[in-house]
Amino acid sequence: MALTPARTMPGVLELLPLDQIAFQRMLDTIRRNYEKFGFLPIETPVIEHSDVLLTKTGGETERQVYFVQSTGALGAAAEKDKGGVPELALRFDLTVPLARYVAEHEHDLSFPFRRYQMQRVYRGERAQRGRFREFYQCDIDVIGKDSLSVRYDAEIPAVIYSVFRDLNIGPFTIQLNNRKLMRGYFENLGIADAEQQMLVLREVDKLDKRGPDYVRDTLTGEAFGLSADVATKILAFVQVRSTSVDNAFAHLDALGAGSETFEQGRAELKEVLTMIRDFGVPETHFALNLSIARGLDYYTGTVYETTLNDHPGIGSICSGGRYENLAGQYTKSHLPGVGISIGLTRLYWQLRDVGLISTAQSTVDVLVTQMDAAQLPTYLAVATELRNAGIATEVVLEGGKLGKQFKYADRAGIRFVVVLGEDEIAKGVVTVKDLRREDQFEVARADLVKTLRVELAQAEIGR
Amino acid sequence: MALTPARTMPGVLELLPLDQIAFQRMLDTIRRNYEKFGFLPIETPVIEHSDVLLTKTGGETERQVYFVQSTGALGAAAEKDKGGVPELALRFDLTVPLARYVAEHEHDLSFPFRRYQMQRVYRGERAQRGRFREFYQCDIDVIGKDSLSVRYDAEIPAVIYSVFRDLNIGPFTIQLNNRKLMRGYFENLGIADAEQQMLVLREVDKLDKRGPDYVRDTLTGEAFGLSADVATKILAFVQVRSTSVDNAFAHLDALGAGSETFEQGRAELKEVLTMIRDFGVPETHFALNLSIARGLDYYTGTVYETTLNDHPGIGSICSGGRYENLAGQYTKSHLPGVGISIGLTRLYWQLRDVGLISTAQSTVDVLVTQMDAAQLPTYLAVATELRNAGIATEVVLEGGKLGKQFKYADRAGIRFVVVLGEDEIAKGVVTVKDLRREDQFEVARADLVKTLRVELAQAEIGR
Repeated sequence: MALTPARTMPGVLELLPLDQIAFQRMLDTIRRNYEKFGFLPIETPVIEHSDVLLTKTGGETERQVYFVQSTGALGAAAEKDKGGVPELALRFDLTVPLARYVAEHEHDLSFPFRRYQMQRVYRGERAQRGRFREFYQCDIDVIGKDSLSVRYDAEIPAVIYSVFRDLNIGPFTIQLNNRKLMRGYFENLGIADAEQQMLVLREVDKLDKRGPDYVRDTLTGEAFGLSADVATKILAFVQVRSTSVDNAFAHLDALGAGSETFEQGRAELKEVLTMIRDFGVPETHFALNLSIARGLDYYTGTVYETTLNDHPGIGSICSGGRYENLAGQYTKSHLPGVGISIGLTRLYWQLRDVGLISTAQSTVDVLVTQMDAAQLPTYLAVATELRNAGIATEVVLEGGKLGKQFKYADRAGIRFVVVLGEDEIAKGVVTVKDLRREDQFEVARADLVKTLRVELAQAEIGR
Repeated sequence: MALTPARTMPGVLELLPLDQIAFQRMLDTIRRNYEKFGFLPIETPVIEHSDVLLTKTGGETERQVYFVQSTGALGAAAEKDKGGVPELALRFDLTVPLARYVAEHEHDLSFPFRRYQMQRVYRGERAQRGRFREFYQCDIDVIGKDSLSVRYDAEIPAVIYSVFRDLNIGPFTIQLNNRKLMRGYFENLGIADAEQQMLVLREVDKLDKRGPDYVRDTLTGEAFGLSADVATKILAFVQVRSTSVDNAFAHLDALGAGSETFEQGRAELKEVLTMIRDFGVPETHFALNLSIARGLDYYTGTVYETTLNDHPGIGSICSGGRYENLAGQYTKSHLPGVGISIGLTRLYWQLRDVGLISTAQSTVDVLVTQMDAAQLPTYLAVATELRNAGIATEVVLEGGKLGKQFKYADRAGIRFVVVLGEDEIAKGVVTVKDLRREDQFEVARADLVKTLRVELAQAEIGR
């Protein structure tokens, strides 16, 4: 029989076990922090009704959607010839499913509804290095009913801080802006038309990637026809970065008086910045950055991006903001919210690429070797003792030379190897080899669990 | 704008947050036990190449497959008219992806390769109560290179025992059989043709559902034409159940001598049963059950099913067995293995249905209320202290009447509510309301973390 080549589709990240453990540790850290801040888990189906998924989205998103059909539906091809869209599709983010979830279960939820969701999403992107067709998003959102205090906008950076502090991937900065402040500022400059504002903001959004000269030329060029003075003011505005809360206040005050929208944005930013500090986030870890625009049709107030100080090239590792109404396409209820998303698959891949993440140690703590098949019941009893104490233990069941068993442990990233030969059994002791320290010691069988627990606890601290 | 009805597709299980927590606890328990036995995590993409997924499978599975197409591929409809199958599909189990994974990464893996995988799979089943189109499978497998000792067949029940003991859903029995024993026994009875054996085994597989009379009638009827004596022997065989390891040995010995295949099966069963006991599994929790046949084309040695003693109607909650060669369709390497699968979505649904699982308490331990907006910085500081101590804490940021805040906590399943008014702040204390015990107490602010940690640790023990 001809063999089928074993391969995954392009654009997915499939990991070897020790890498999967490193990835799983990141997921666990994020989950632990989300829960610590009182967010509740939900999971939604990967497949949704196409009409539910595609109510809001424009052409670009639609082209990236994966549609789904069971074999039966494929047979009935006629429907397709009518240019119809298949009934089912894979979610392309977690926000649309959240909107659907909240609208569907509205009467069973307590508001403000604080949920976290960590699942995979699907986009039919062109295959390209660092672009994924399947990737994890790790989202939190707080959804209010009718209204939601701007104070929640300050809690989100406290969560971001806590997550990235614990992920331990180097210094980072949570950068904030406010869409009302931006809009108001542009209105002051005579750019009052909403669509024109959007276009200018879209240009401004390119600032980090293309540089100020490119943006200035575009703004004063044919397409926008702004005066050099206005372009200069816009560029000055979007280049504001703060170094502390007080410094942020000074920057904001220096912008002068403005429209109602502008003043509202300024007041919100001041409240949010003050409160982030009250949440215990060090002032080294958050800053005003008036260039941040984000999803232009979606966010309406505070917006966030987070960057690694030593790796600006990675771009934002956690983004989000405040939106006016989550689920207007499904319900008449007014549901304002604020949230962020961590695209973990891409982040993991980038961090590994720059050497900030390496292969993890095994989740297996101990390998119980097999010196003598006749002693298997003893080996199994030792393993059971260790497992009952919560120590992850593998037993060599197959046998073979001891040296080969050590090599297996070493290759598999297992740190401790337990050896029990005739001598040891007669003396009531166990030999423990520490493959990391390249050391070995003898311990009374009765003390084995206690000893390994101490060793593993110390390793956990050093991790 | 007309609203789109917010709804999920039929055949998926979407949970409210407190139910999701209960589900997540089960996933965590399973994962913890899989890791304790030294299994390593892997995850594979939900989408696979259709030709990779469908190499081995017959018509029935194929009809249940969900095919996937991005919008671009849908446009190119011509290919479809040629009766072609779309290039991509959703996995319908975790075994085929495991086979593909092991074949693809063979040279980077250590053998025996012990992996666990807990992900969702997809089947385009007819919508029906208790049938799911999206469901979790929680699998473990041990894969050998060239060979794999039958001892691993004894380790699997030790894992099953540990998982279901910790899931704490009542008494259960792991039931074992061996396909070689079965085949050999049928050969002895003159049913030597492999296909005929398969058909008989398929009838025997209906024993639990249809009863012995139905099976006897079928076997002596036109389709099989077996003698009454042979049918009686088959029925006696498949009705064997053991009450202990010794009793199992007696049953096995009473079957008399047989073919080489038969003797091999008997020897394997004896070794496996003895070793399960050595693994510390109580004899009350595993038994010989010679009626178990399982996936007829797939398993070649030991087979397992697990049932809840008090809920036989639920059927097998964890099944699997030994197979001869995992990935013959992808690689020339010979990769024997043994494994099991827990269909967690269905199991959770069934357990909830019979009242064995209820809604969980919230993952949120503490709600810090807001008595006085001016004191928010104090509330935030208290929350940060609690979170830094690992206590999941929500702060009321919106304000409102205290009574309403208590009601929110109660409805959300949060047990402890912290109250800090002017009085408390002046006295340096905190009032803690225990909503479960309907009790309240005052504690020095400095002792709050310590006190709540003790309370929560006690609650964890009582859980």
